[in-house]
Amino acid sequence: MSYFPDISNVQFEGGQSSNPFAFKYYNPEQTIGNQKMKDWLRFSVAYWHTFTLDGADPFGAPTMQRPWDHYTGMDLAKARADAAFEFIDKIGAEYFCFHDVDVAPEGNSLKESQQNLDAIVPILKEHMKSSGTKLLWNTANMFVHPRFMHGAATSNDPDVYAYSAAKVKKQLEIAKELGAENYVFWGGREGYESLLNTDMGFELDNLANFYHMALDYAKEIGFNGQFLIEPKPKEPTKHQYDYDTASAYAFLQKYGLQNDFKINIEANHATLAGHSFEHELHYARVNGILGSVDANQGDLLLGWDTDEFPTDIYAATLAMYEILKNGGLGSGGLNFDAKVRRTSFEPNDLFHGHVVGMDTFALGLKIAHKMLEDNALENIISERYQGFQTDIGQKIVQGTTSFHELEKHAHQAKIKNVSGHNEMIRGMINQYIRETD
Amino acid sequence: MSYFPDISNVQFEGGQSSNPFAFKYYNPEQTIGNQKMKDWLRFSVAYWHTFTLDGADPFGAPTMQRPWDHYTGMDLAKARADAAFEFIDKIGAEYFCFHDVDVAPEGNSLKESQQNLDAIVPILKEHMKSSGTKLLWNTANMFVHPRFMHGAATSNDPDVYAYSAAKVKKQLEIAKELGAENYVFWGGREGYESLLNTDMGFELDNLANFYHMALDYAKEIGFNGQFLIEPKPKEPTKHQYDYDTASAYAFLQKYGLQNDFKINIEANHATLAGHSFEHELHYARVNGILGSVDANQGDLLLGWDTDEFPTDIYAATLAMYEILKNGGLGSGGLNFDAKVRRTSFEPNDLFHGHVVGMDTFALGLKIAHKMLEDNALENIISERYQGFQTDIGQKIVQGTTSFHELEKHAHQAKIKNVSGHNEMIRGMINQYIRETD
Amino acid sequence: MSYFPDISNVQFEGGQSSNPFAFKYYNPEQTIGNQKMKDWLRFSVAYWHTFTLDGADPFGAPTMQRPWDHYTGMDLAKARADAAFEFIDKIGAEYFCFHDVDVAPEGNSLKESQQNLDAIVPILKEHMKSSGTKLLWNTANMFVHPRFMHGAATSNDPDVYAYSAAKVKKQLEIAKELGAENYVFWGGREGYESLLNTDMGFELDNLANFYHMALDYAKEIGFNGQFLIEPKPKEPTKHQYDYDTASAYAFLQKYGLQNDFKINIEANHATLAGHSFEHELHYARVNGILGSVDANQGDLLLGWDTDEFPTDIYAATLAMYEILKNGGLGSGGLNFDAKVRRTSFEPNDLFHGHVVGMDTFALGLKIAHKMLEDNALENIISERYQGFQTDIGQKIVQGTTSFHELEKHAHQAKIKNVSGHNEMIRGMINQYIRETD
Amino acid sequence: MSYFPDISNVQFEGGQSSNPFAFKYYNPEQTIGNQKMKDWLRFSVAYWHTFTLDGADPFGAPTMQRPWDHYTGMDLAKARADAAFEFIDKIGAEYFCFHDVDVAPEGNSLKESQQNLDAIVPILKEHMKSSGTKLLWNTANMFVHPRFMHGAATSNDPDVYAYSAAKVKKQLEIAKELGAENYVFWGGREGYESLLNTDMGFELDNLANFYHMALDYAKEIGFNGQFLIEPKPKEPTKHQYDYDTASAYAFLQKYGLQNDFKINIEANHATLAGHSFEHELHYARVNGILGSVDANQGDLLLGWDTDEFPTDIYAATLAMYEILKNGGLGSGGLNFDAKVRRTSFEPNDLFHGHVVGMDTFALGLKIAHKMLEDNALENIISERYQGFQTDIGQKIVQGTTSFHELEKHAHQAKIKNVSGHNEMIRGMINQYIRETD
Ligand SMILES: [Co+2]
Ligand SMILES: [Co+2]
Ligand SMILES: [Co+2]
Ligand SMILES: [Co+2]
Ligand SMILES: [Co+2]
Ligand SMILES: [Co+2]
Ligand SMILES: [Co+2]
Ligand SMILES: [Co+2]
Repeated sequence: MSYFPDISNVQFEGGQSSNPFAFKYYNPEQTIGNQKMKDWLRFSVAYWHTFTLDGADPFGAPTMQRPWDHYTGMDLAKARADAAFEFIDKIGAEYFCFHDVDVAPEGNSLKESQQNLDAIVPILKEHMKSSGTKLLWNTANMFVHPRFMHGAATSNDPDVYAYSAAKVKKQLEIAKELGAENYVFWGGREGYESLLNTDMGFELDNLANFYHMALDYAKEIGFNGQFLIEPKPKEPTKHQYDYDTASAYAFLQKYGLQNDFKINIEANHATLAGHSFEHELHYARVNGILGSVDANQGDLLLGWDTDEFPTDIYAATLAMYEILKNGGLGSGGLNFDAKVRRTSFEPNDLFHGHVVGMDTFALGLKIAHKMLEDNALENIISERYQGFQTDIGQKIVQGTTSFHELEKHAHQAKIKNVSGHNEMIRGMINQYIRETD
Repeated sequence: MSYFPDISNVQFEGGQSSNPFAFKYYNPEQTIGNQKMKDWLRFSVAYWHTFTLDGADPFGAPTMQRPWDHYTGMDLAKARADAAFEFIDKIGAEYFCFHDVDVAPEGNSLKESQQNLDAIVPILKEHMKSSGTKLLWNTANMFVHPRFMHGAATSNDPDVYAYSAAKVKKQLEIAKELGAENYVFWGGREGYESLLNTDMGFELDNLANFYHMALDYAKEIGFNGQFLIEPKPKEPTKHQYDYDTASAYAFLQKYGLQNDFKINIEANHATLAGHSFEHELHYARVNGILGSVDANQGDLLLGWDTDEFPTDIYAATLAMYEILKNGGLGSGGLNFDAKVRRTSFEPNDLFHGHVVGMDTFALGLKIAHKMLEDNALENIISERYQGFQTDIGQKIVQGTTSFHELEKHAHQAKIKNVSGHNEMIRGMINQYIRETD
Repeated sequence: MSYFPDISNVQFEGGQSSNPFAFKYYNPEQTIGNQKMKDWLRFSVAYWHTFTLDGADPFGAPTMQRPWDHYTGMDLAKARADAAFEFIDKIGAEYFCFHDVDVAPEGNSLKESQQNLDAIVPILKEHMKSSGTKLLWNTANMFVHPRFMHGAATSNDPDVYAYSAAKVKKQLEIAKELGAENYVFWGGREGYESLLNTDMGFELDNLANFYHMALDYAKEIGFNGQFLIEPKPKEPTKHQYDYDTASAYAFLQKYGLQNDFKINIEANHATLAGHSFEHELHYARVNGILGSVDANQGDLLLGWDTDEFPTDIYAATLAMYEILKNGGLGSGGLNFDAKVRRTSFEPNDLFHGHVVGMDTFALGLKIAHKMLEDNALENIISERYQGFQTDIGQKIVQGTTSFHELEKHAHQAKIKNVSGHNEMIRGMINQYIRETD
Repeated sequence: MSYFPDISNVQFEGGQSSNPFAFKYYNPEQTIGNQKMKDWLRFSVAYWHTFTLDGADPFGAPTMQRPWDHYTGMDLAKARADAAFEFIDKIGAEYFCFHDVDVAPEGNSLKESQQNLDAIVPILKEHMKSSGTKLLWNTANMFVHPRFMHGAATSNDPDVYAYSAAKVKKQLEIAKELGAENYVFWGGREGYESLLNTDMGFELDNLANFYHMALDYAKEIGFNGQFLIEPKPKEPTKHQYDYDTASAYAFLQKYGLQNDFKINIEANHATLAGHSFEHELHYARVNGILGSVDANQGDLLLGWDTDEFPTDIYAATLAMYEILKNGGLGSGGLNFDAKVRRTSFEPNDLFHGHVVGMDTFALGLKIAHKMLEDNALENIISERYQGFQTDIGQKIVQGTTSFHELEKHAHQAKIKNVSGHNEMIRGMINQYIRETD
């Protein structure tokens, strides 16, 4: 039985194709530098947005039409799994990601929820085996259920904290079972709605203890995937503790977790925090904590998380530039934490969304790779900073000078600034976008 | 000679006074808890906004009318100093703050600039001595002059770096000479205009070296004031490295500076970064890095730093609440990094701005103190978190449990959430604002 | 049977009361100027937020606990009506507002939906009669159901347009039946998600035709209530055509509707559009289109419609100032389009929310009235603009001068600006907030 | 004498060129549809940003290095004019724009200012004649000088109002003399800093009178250029009355000015107002008031007017799409109200900025033209709205139906929504951007 009977495997047809079910730029087997496109990009389909999302918004009821809608309960979970792997196979992604509640329904008790997961995991495993699809990461959803209204690992209620631990414990076991390459924490309710009734220091201490226990448990069961924190500044809470990469990094360092965690950077969360996508990637890279990417985009004129499929070639180019500078994402990948618009409610739109997302990042990869091959920005940067190669510049870098010596130098130095040539560089990037084959 | 001949020392007259040159709420000698108002508040006048600001904006020429405008060069510097101490004395602040370029003009060379400072510092010292005014902090302005267009301690040019070192060196010497209680770094150009020509990791390494050299030099000359970083997310740069308190804390920890620096939190910078003022204070407090405060306010519907005099009783109350919880600001204070509007160009407006700022924080102090006396929020918080006093809650806090034990607990726990009563709390705060004597 | 058995009618107890179920400032029968408080304020309870809201958010399931939750279908509708009028009575509001879908469930057809309404309207009418509660306004919800995904009166599908007409037609009949004093249009989906597939001009023409037909039908059935448009800039759509009061006014004028419509201004929508609440009220007032108010508040650091209960005394004061300058709201009122936080899920929180909202606007009324009594701002304004009372100023106002005469005047005039004294005025307002009895 | 001796006329070299002083996409004589590129684009150089801007920002001193910097007074004005026309000629723009104060220094009196203008205008005229450069528009700067601190035509002081009239009168005479094709009003100070001391209704009435007098005077002297209003939401004021196109349209209609004014839309002002650039153009187009364009771009993560040179191909494409749909801009053009970054301080950067701006809009033109040729969006739109071609749909459009008939229709209609296919459309646009020759 097929859920998308009219759609064949999506193929590369090139930029002139007008087939909405073909790739125009993503050619998985094409070699870019020393790797195939697909190995640089490591695309992942997000189970929640693509297989469970219903199209509701704060002012609107569900709109999505899905061929598995007539099922309920565990039957729905199984039907969704079938549909999911059919979709992933047809779209040609090698990875997927899920929250516990995406793949199996919540039961009436923790035990029943766990049993539901136990029933579905072998099904997922079989699908993974037969299709060759891999699990980029899984996670525990600790934000939807009312029990998490005041937080999960930062709840004011130890019962909720314990419940959260049980959920993460289970997901770590599943991560081990399914060979997940990473494990993600997005603290959707780890923050506050009002500072007036909140003890932030207390909550953060508890959160750190929680992460330490998670690491202990992963070690105990032999799960070696990379732990990741996904920052977001706000929404649903007024303030989320992992506001951006920098605030997560401050937290990790304070609690001695900086060697065990990296960051999962979402484009839309970056911009909601006031940063560009490339800024967050760059900051994570230079601090050695770039782990994985939630590949989507926001609307900068809207103040909430729109989780749009990435279509902006500029953003994808600069993102891939940082990823290439990082030597790739290691165990991370490009996960489409992206949803079709509420008005794109037909099943085919799921294909359109992924096609444009994959094409956009394929373009980004090709363009960024060409720029790096040409040292387009590297030459600019090495020329700009060349003064630090010798003499006092070198001493500054090596930390072998002092305010005394620097002052003496300053008294005789003739400062001569050089233009940053911002406009010229932007013109050059437009040429790369237009002219890269 | 007087610069404000028509204005006498500003006195406390109480809430019914309609005298625009009297305090309605700030009564410096009144005791609040175990200290006088003035000792809690440690008000400081900002030399730049009050004595050098000209009222220009990106679309407008200077408007300010100042009785010392007819002077130039060092004569202007001296006249300003006379006017400044007359003003500080009349307004009744105990502290002031300055940048090097506020108090003495830039010369044609580093040497001449230093000589100008050498000429003015004894004058400031004499004024301080005779008036009893103290120096809350001083700093080097490393953002106005074109030489800093690409940064100061994060410039791409080692000559600029060296020049910056010379400026900070001089200011540390002046800090020592004038008994400054703190030394502030606001990195107005320490960031980037475009990431495309920037090596952020390189620049941050250099910046850390700069701070270490500054600490070394302070130690060498016996300057014991507190070092402070003042975060701001953007403006004038597109991105400033010390975006907010969290990002500054991440930086300090990475480079081993977290024990030697605290944070100077500006209200308007907090909101530009997407945080409430009280959030930044609370975050700094629970991480032990709350140093000092730039007391102003922004307009949340405007996207730039308006540096308005603080008039919002809510903000001042929650700020003073955090400060009282912190046991005061230690060597820090409340510095009015605030400017009269461009249209408030008459000298009297300088008094009006400070009067409303001081009155607003006096109200904030009184109201916050009353709330603390009543344990108004403390009772709510201790009741909310009471589950962590015993049993599994206690073990979580102590770090003596595990995912195994927590899962077992979760299987039998009956989670029962309690309302956060946000609306009731806000009503209570309105009562404190209205009813506190 | 009672839904709030433990709560009696909320009484005025004064500012010292610590009873969370008492008013501290709202004293309905107290006379302010020439009217009772309650007649100035004309408080209205919003059926949707208070009786149907479930606490779901984009990342969370319902949390609200309501004593009528166990009912379904028409039984639920009836139970809600009972609970609603008990609540409205106990809180002491004189008005309520509703959407069609708030009071009766959608049926399986338009006809069934209409029948459900027909069944519930007599019940509402009876409640209104027995309690003395009046209907401030009703409206048709044309945004939740999937049929409205592309708009209602601006849909690309004439069937949806017709369906929308049928809904408004029915609501106008109900408005007539229940004596509604106004009828509101909030175009939650009247806008676009993407301009790329939208013909804005076509949609706006259709929308205007729709309004003209609504006016015709109201006239036909003898409904004399005021028609109101409620602007909102975005959310759920990317762009809503009635972005703010000015854009609604442009639309009304273009299509000859400006004499038949006024504006229903929501505070949170104002700030989402980049305007202060008082700006929108002032703009509507000076253009003669201030109709009614949705009394809530947003969080200016969040980019979505939080619809919080109004607690900000500043905002309420400046709002009531505009309303008093307008001579009151005419047939309009202060409708609490406000919801308790998702974590304030207990029934009592509904009382706390309304208590703080009513108290805040009562304070706003008292303070604004005192300011007007004292001509506090009026004196400032008449002095500022006094030059327009005579000579060339008078001619400018009367439109009896020309560029020739003005140039001649300019050649000899000595321009002398006077400070706007912004800081002093803000200090004065703080005094009114603290000192008004 | 040459101010840019090392730079020859900028030539088209094509997308492969690495010459920073050549066009890669702008080929002025190339025919697109029925016109040459240059005739569609009507590029204009902004005198202020390119010839007078000094690189100062709110925290920084001037940085720009200009070969005419050593002149002062009228000599500077003449040198600038020489440099300007050399630049305009070399860059190959056909138009320029200026404010009065850009081309001639303010004198010590209105009379002297007028005399300075009288001295410079013949020089400009001669340059225009010899170079063939035309004046797109001129305007009076009524925001920089302190006299305008409280507004110009909305000042509280009739003397300032008269002075403003004298300035506009003079500029209209110059517009006539130089054959300007438009006259622009940007009300940089026509708004308020604080609503507390402002009478908005009074000020708007005066502003309307001012515009009527301007129209009268233009008619009197036979100036037939198009009058334009340029909206901006804020900055320098807290609120500018012409907030966006919609608010300007509301104003124009109220005061009977809608047939005499069109709108000059600036991209950066659009986004500061919360709108996309294409939204403002589309809105103006469908309301018949699209006049001219200030071609620049903002940084959507920054809250102020950065006036960057336009480099975004998406924005330029959608802008040119609207302009082509409008049948061109009539007497309007694309004016580069854009400034090189403060760090792009070398004279060559002026060329780089204009090259990238012109290339970007040339790309936009080509891509948009190709999309229109293919009816790429038109087909989508006509299919989406096809229901309005017949039956009830047609009656709705013609305004010949009623709520009675629509309700009847609704009772039998089967609503069937169709996906808006947002993701597919965005993928298609990426193809046009990459594949258009
Ligand atoms: Co994500
Ligand atoms: Co997201
Ligand atoms: Co500051
Ligand atoms: Co500031
Ligand atoms: Co509303
Ligand atoms: Co709302
Ligand atoms: Co402009
Ligand atoms: Co601009």
